[in-house]
Parts: sequence; structure tokens; C-alpha cells
Amino acid sequence: MKRLIEKIVEMQSPIVVGLDSLLDYIPDHIKEEHFKKLGYSFDAASSSILQFNKEIIDVIYNIVPAVKLQAAYYELYSWQGMKALVETAEYAKSKGMIVMIDGKRNDIGSTMEAYAKAHIGETTIGNEKMSAFSGDILTVNGYLGSDGIKPLLDICQNGDKGIFVLVKTSNPSSGELQDKQIESKTVYETMGEMCEEWGKQTALHYGYSSVGAVVGATYPEQLVEMRKKMPHSFFLVPGYGAQGGGAKDVVGAFDKNGLGAIINNSRGIINSWKSHVTSSDTNTYLKYVKEAALKMQEAILSEIGEIKIK
Amino acid sequence: MKRLIEKIVEMQSPIVVGLDSLLDYIPDHIKEEHFKKLGYSFDAASSSILQFNKEIIDVIYNIVPAVKLQAAYYELYSWQGMKALVETAEYAKSKGMIVMIDGKRNDIGSTMEAYAKAHIGETTIGNEKMSAFSGDILTVNGYLGSDGIKPLLDICQNGDKGIFVLVKTSNPSSGELQDKQIESKTVYETMGEMCEEWGKQTALHYGYSSVGAVVGATYPEQLVEMRKKMPHSFFLVPGYGAQGGGAKDVVGAFDKNGLGAIINNSRGIINSWKSHVTSSDTNTYLKYVKEAALKMQEAILSEIGEIKIK
Repeated sequence: MKRLIEKIVEMQSPIVVGLDSLLDYIPDHIKEEHFKKLGYSFDAASSSILQFNKEIIDVIYNIVPAVKLQAAYYELYSWQGMKALVETAEYAKSKGMIVMIDGKRNDIGSTMEAYAKAHIGETTIGNEKMSAFSGDILTVNGYLGSDGIKPLLDICQNGDKGIFVLVKTSNPSSGELQDKQIESKTVYETMGEMCEEWGKQTALHYGYSSVGAVVGATYPEQLVEMRKKMPHSFFLVPGYGAQGGGAKDVVGAFDKNGLGAIINNSRGIINSWKSHVTSSDTNTYLKYVKEAALKMQEAILSEIGEIKIK
Repeated sequence: MKRLIEKIVEMQSPIVVGLDSLLDYIPDHIKEEHFKKLGYSFDAASSSILQFNKEIIDVIYNIVPAVKLQAAYYELYSWQGMKALVETAEYAKSKGMIVMIDGKRNDIGSTMEAYAKAHIGETTIGNEKMSAFSGDILTVNGYLGSDGIKPLLDICQNGDKGIFVLVKTSNPSSGELQDKQIESKTVYETMGEMCEEWGKQTALHYGYSSVGAVVGATYPEQLVEMRKKMPHSFFLVPGYGAQGGGAKDVVGAFDKNGLGAIINNSRGIINSWKSHVTSSDTNTYLKYVKEAALKMQEAILSEIGEIKIK
């Protein structure tokens, strides 16, 4: 979280681009090249996605500090898709970006340890240690309680890594469980308190622990509420753009220094070219991707002002 | 769930073997062969795991109806590990087994649709449809509410597939959130009610919907309670064996016909040989694996009697 905060301040850009790279989102000229070589196959899907991701990274790595890889869209293309995820993560890191893996993983102790090692830690094989997915940050679900989170805290603390725990998600039905009352608090507030507790087991940097929280842009009031109640938890805010959240909706996620949150945009960036570019002219698509990232940066900064380290 | 129930009755075996195939659990003679060829690498790990899984499947496929693949232990070995998961699933299916993928996946609408297609549905590439992970059943986390579950229900209904939703997990800290009171009910009861509601959107077979629930063997009282409160939800019961649950603890998960639950055992089966076999003699390990599966079947049947379809 320390590296993330420093990069956000350095670039004045509290934005993460979600590489939700479904085949449908990839320009025809890229896909067709790979289909011609490899047929309609997971291998063709995987190499199309990797090429698309690399082209996007090339135009955004000096505008935004981080990319978020949504595991579901890679699993959709089987192990070949996961290979594209790994290679995208390695490429993004080579460009100095922070890599978030949006897996919302959750399990009990020993199994969660395996997820922790896989996504943000190291795997031991014989006497060698190696990174399975090369992530810096993993999103997780805390429904199973502390022993599903503990294995992550050691890696956060010793390996300079971070996690974001689901607190209040951006989808329409998130309230079915999350808004229910436990005594005088909602389920999401209770989860928020658990995050603050877990965060105490990691060091604070610039006021924030390595345990962050996911709070959706589609619930601006809850963003304001949770910013107050979770003073040491950095927020990952989904729901900007395609899901309906805008720059004004996310203001509440930031502290008075413009720190405390990173806003995700996936389709709003990687699909931004679709309304401008015809299929015969998809080579120019990257211009619109870059423009969308710059516009989002401008919109957010005009609401929150300069981002400062206290 | 229909096929699962029929196979349980036919084999008189309400057991699923968890292939939690960490390298540490694999006999030396298997691993060393692959390390010699491929070095200490994800490729060597992946082919060791695949060989081990196939050998286990060969001795259990006529004793138990299903295998459960814990995604975390495959992700630990990067995309090569996921390749072993895919190939294990295909092998188990070729032997007539039901394949559960224990991924505890969860996300919002469009993203959950990708997980649903990946694990129990089909991926479309160009004009071809193909299976990414070849699962019959996926475990999921319902913290995000209905729109995280809906994409699965169509596939369950039209594709003869099933899901198990986490209700009360087997780990020591499961109560931190799950046991808290929402009005007059606990969080896990509330989740249980949501499961029963989701189940109504799928057909009933032998009294059970395609939406099952995960309820841990380590909480026998809650098993009894939830069996009554969730009459249409088949249970996946973890926690037997290594986590401390025994045959008497799981009795409450079954209905009066001995239906209604399938009990998972992972380390208790796949590691059963470790106390008997020396490293120079690991070729005989499969005898103990088979014996452990038969013993578990006997122990459970002696508690619940014959399993009958109403």
C-alpha cells in the first residue's frame, strides 16, 4: 500500500484501470490475426488478450499507477487465459505499474494460505521459490472471518503487499446481506470494523494499513460514512463509469489530502474507443483509450484538488 | 444435483474426495521423476499433481461418486497448476465421476457470469463453444447477494449443473460474522434462507434444488438446525477427518432417507498412506488411499443406514 500511495501522489492519479479483457472488447484486427493462426481456441483467445493488454498498458502506464486484473475474465479462457493473466502482470510490472488481482478469494486457514502465496506471495518447489501470479494486491472476501485473512497479513507485512476486503460492493443487490442490521450496525459496517482490526497487524504508511476495503462508487453516502469509520483503510472503489458512478460520487472516498482511495474504471477505459472507431479502422483505438484515462484523471482531480502526502 | 443424488444412491456412498494435491502430499517417487525431467518448476509441479490425481482417481472411482478440486492448491502452481486442474477434471469425468470445483467464487452480475461460464458452463470463442474447466458443481460465496448468484441459476437449470453456497463454514473463526444476529436470526441462517429462495428458481429432484449449501462438520448442532431450516438444499459438508469432524458429527446433515448431504474428506484420504509407508516404498501408497475411502464409507453408512430415494 506504501508503494501504491507513493505512485498515486507522484503521478497525481488515484486511478486503476481494470483490464477486464473479454474477447468482445478486443478490436477485430487483433483477434483475427490470432484466430487465423490458432483457430477458435483458448490459445487464440489468450494471445489476443495478452496483445490487447500490452497495447493498453503501453498507452496508460505513465497516466495511471496500477492495473486490476479481474480473474473471472481470464478463467473464462481456461488455463490459457490464466497464462495471459500471468504474462500481463509481468508486463505491467516491467513498466513499473502496481498489479492488483481482483479474485475476491476466500477460504479457511491452510487453503487461504495457498491463495495468498499464489497471488501475492511465493510458491516453494523443491528448494526454489517463485511467483505464481506476480500480484502486488489481492481482493478478498471476509465472510469466513479472521482465519481466512491471517495468512495474508504476514505476506502483506513482510513482502510489501496489500489486500482489499469486500465491505460494500457496487452491485444493485449488495444490500440483501450487507445492509442488514447486526445490533446497531449493518453487516458492511461490521465487516469494516473487522478490516480496521486486521489492519492493526500491519504497519501504517502515510496513515494507512496494508488492509484496504472495497466500497462501491454506486453508494456515495456509504463512501462518506465508511471513510469516517475506517480511517486507516485505503479504499478500492469500483462502479465508476459503466456502472454509473461519476467523479462527484467518489469524492467522499478521499481524505482531506486527496489520499485514501483509488478509483477503478474498466469498460469506461478499455471500451472507450467502441463508439468512435469503425471495425475497418481499429488501429486508431489506442488514442481513445489514452484520452479516456486522461479525462478521468482530470475529472477526479478537479473534484479533490492536489493529492498530498501529510 | 440430480446426477449427484442418483450416483450417491447407486454407490451407497455420500462421499466426495478432495484432491487438495499440494506437492507435500505427493509421494517422492512421483515428484522426483518429474523434477528430474523438468527441474524445480511449475511444469514439474503440474505434471506431478496430474499423475498423483489420476492414480488416486483410479482407486476411488468405484467407491465414491465425486471429486472436489480446491482451486487454491492449483493456483499455487500458476497457470500450469490450473492446467493440471483442467486435465484432472476431464480424467475424473472420463471415469464417470462428478466434478466439484471448490473455488468459492463471488462477484457482481456480468463478472459472475464469466465465472459461471468458466467453471460449470461454456465459453464462446468465434462460433465455437467449449468448456474452460469442465466442472459439474461450483462452490460460491453469496456475500454480494442475488445478482452474484443469478448468472449461475440459468446454467444450473439448463445445463444440469449445481452450486453450493457458503452458509456456515467449518473453520474456527467462522462465527465472527456468520454467527452474528440479524434481528432474530444469525447471518448464516439469513444466508440459508437466501439459498432456499435461489433454489426455487431451479427444478427439484428427489426433493432437492440445484442450489446447495456448505455447512461444516465441525458444527454438528448447526448441521441439525440447518437441515430442518433448509429442506430443499443439499449440503456439502467439509471438516471431516483432518479438521476433526467424525461420522457421528455429520449424521444431522442427512434426512430420514440418508439423503441430503455429501461429506468431503481431503487430507484424510489422499494423505492416509503417510503414516504407513516409508519413502523408499511409496509404490504401495494407493492401498491405503483405497482403504481410507472404504473405511469412511462404512463409518458413515453405519450411522445413517441404507440411502434410499423417496
